[in-house]
Amino acid sequence: MAKYWTTPAVEALRADGVRISELDTSATPGFTGDKAAGVESLAERTAVLSGLQEKLYANGRSGDKRSVLLVLQGMDTAGKGGIVRHVIGSVDPQGVDHAAFGVPTPEEKRHHYLWRIRKALPRGGQLGVFDRSHYEDVLVVRVHDLVPRSEWEPRYDEINAFEQELADEDTTVVKVAMFVSLDEQKRRLRERLERPDKYWKFNPSDIDERAYWPAYQEAYQAMLERTSTDVAPWYVIPADRKWFARLAITELLVEALETLDLDWPKAGFDIQEQLRRLEQA
Amino acid sequence: MAKYWTTPAVEALRADGVRISELDTSATPGFTGDKAAGVESLAERTAVLSGLQEKLYANGRSGDKRSVLLVLQGMDTAGKGGIVRHVIGSVDPQGVDHAAFGVPTPEEKRHHYLWRIRKALPRGGQLGVFDRSHYEDVLVVRVHDLVPRSEWEPRYDEINAFEQELADEDTTVVKVAMFVSLDEQKRRLRERLERPDKYWKFNPSDIDERAYWPAYQEAYQAMLERTSTDVAPWYVIPADRKWFARLAITELLVEALETLDLDWPKAGFDIQEQLRRLEQA
Repeated sequence: MAKYWTTPAVEALRADGVRISELDTSATPGFTGDKAAGVESLAERTAVLSGLQEKLYANGRSGDKRSVLLVLQGMDTAGKGGIVRHVIGSVDPQGVDHAAFGVPTPEEKRHHYLWRIRKALPRGGQLGVFDRSHYEDVLVVRVHDLVPRSEWEPRYDEINAFEQELADEDTTVVKVAMFVSLDEQKRRLRERLERPDKYWKFNPSDIDERAYWPAYQEAYQAMLERTSTDVAPWYVIPADRKWFARLAITELLVEALETLDLDWPKAGFDIQEQLRRLEQA
Repeated sequence: MAKYWTTPAVEALRADGVRISELDTSATPGFTGDKAAGVESLAERTAVLSGLQEKLYANGRSGDKRSVLLVLQGMDTAGKGGIVRHVIGSVDPQGVDHAAFGVPTPEEKRHHYLWRIRKALPRGGQLGVFDRSHYEDVLVVRVHDLVPRSEWEPRYDEINAFEQELADEDTTVVKVAMFVSLDEQKRRLRERLERPDKYWKFNPSDIDERAYWPAYQEAYQAMLERTSTDVAPWYVIPADRKWFARLAITELLVEALETLDLDWPKAGFDIQEQLRRLEQA
């Protein structure tokens, strides 16, 4: 276990029993250090993550089909983009399969909601990252009645079956839901309106969505209760403190990769023979 | 122009007139500093690259269709992977479209050689990276007679027409060919055979390919002479010194992005009105 943690992140952050409406979004569950300790710890653990990811990639190149998939969910300004930039940005881009899921395109709408998801699954050896995911189909879709309840209601079970399939195919799924407070969201939206280098991140509809906060909390709560399974558990990330969110997700990825017990692939050739050939070539 | 450079990298490294067979692969054309200066310069220019890339991405998100495509070519051990890891790894993964082109799959073989290339082109706002590319179809294919000359010969003109198309669609193509000496390649291959964490990068056929060195030099020379155009020029990177190759390619990307004269996207909404709405939401 890493320094300053009282318990592994996979235990401290597990969604089981969490009530979103009562969540302290400025807490740092499991981590006893302050911001300075968090920043120090992040640098250390980022190096560990990068090393583990290289091993995963090396094994993938040698035919191992195991992969890891990070699923990022969270309301606007929760910090999903920052996780991609700062956490995923610390590992080799060759080993990253990144996909962002926005409003479905007309073509995507003509297909089952898992169609676009299946097309973006990580290949063997890759660290996949979904910025939003199939969970939008039980979140925004549920909150805004984009399809009738009779249609979204069965999706929870369907998603669980889908993720069991992923597990069967040796994809380790790490699902994180990031939460900021309504006040913190206001601060972050205000910053986007006050800095010309942030205007592009702002959309007037982000303000409209704030009126749906209770409905989103309810939808997130249902999602956590119905789709946090042993093969693909949800983790809840209090995200008011950006440094903690980054550290927590780094730690979850490190712990997930450690369970794979990766080693460098063995040589598929006679080393001495190849060294002799090389000297003559 | 960046510190220690006597001339912009796009001039110092331009392929025009370069004879591959006479190239000093340990040179640092255009750069007057030593390794320490190079490392310092790389840190500075990486930050500049990262900032420019974020602007490109921001504009893409706001509907701008401009993109940049880095094409990496080079023989085994030339350091293409290191460029992806260390140069491309310094920018936000959200804005990177990375594609590696290996031996064509059976499906790819049933299509025109540009089919898989077109599918992987960067979207607006993205920094695309091709680790190997359509140029394999006039390099390995030519060296090993994988198709008759009557088939590969017309490809040079076809590729030029294709890259003119890319330019017309506002994709800035930056093509770099990386070269190490035969001795340096031997050292790098030996390292892969001596370190268990590098075995996975070694393939016995890499040694066989060394016998084709003169044929590859000829194929690279023809490629540079026939496909270095004003809309998509080739740059030649002496790559025995890894620090120089990384610095040179960072610099080429910075210079390419600077020609786009990017600014932050303007707000597509009334800022004061949104600030008022936000305070009440």
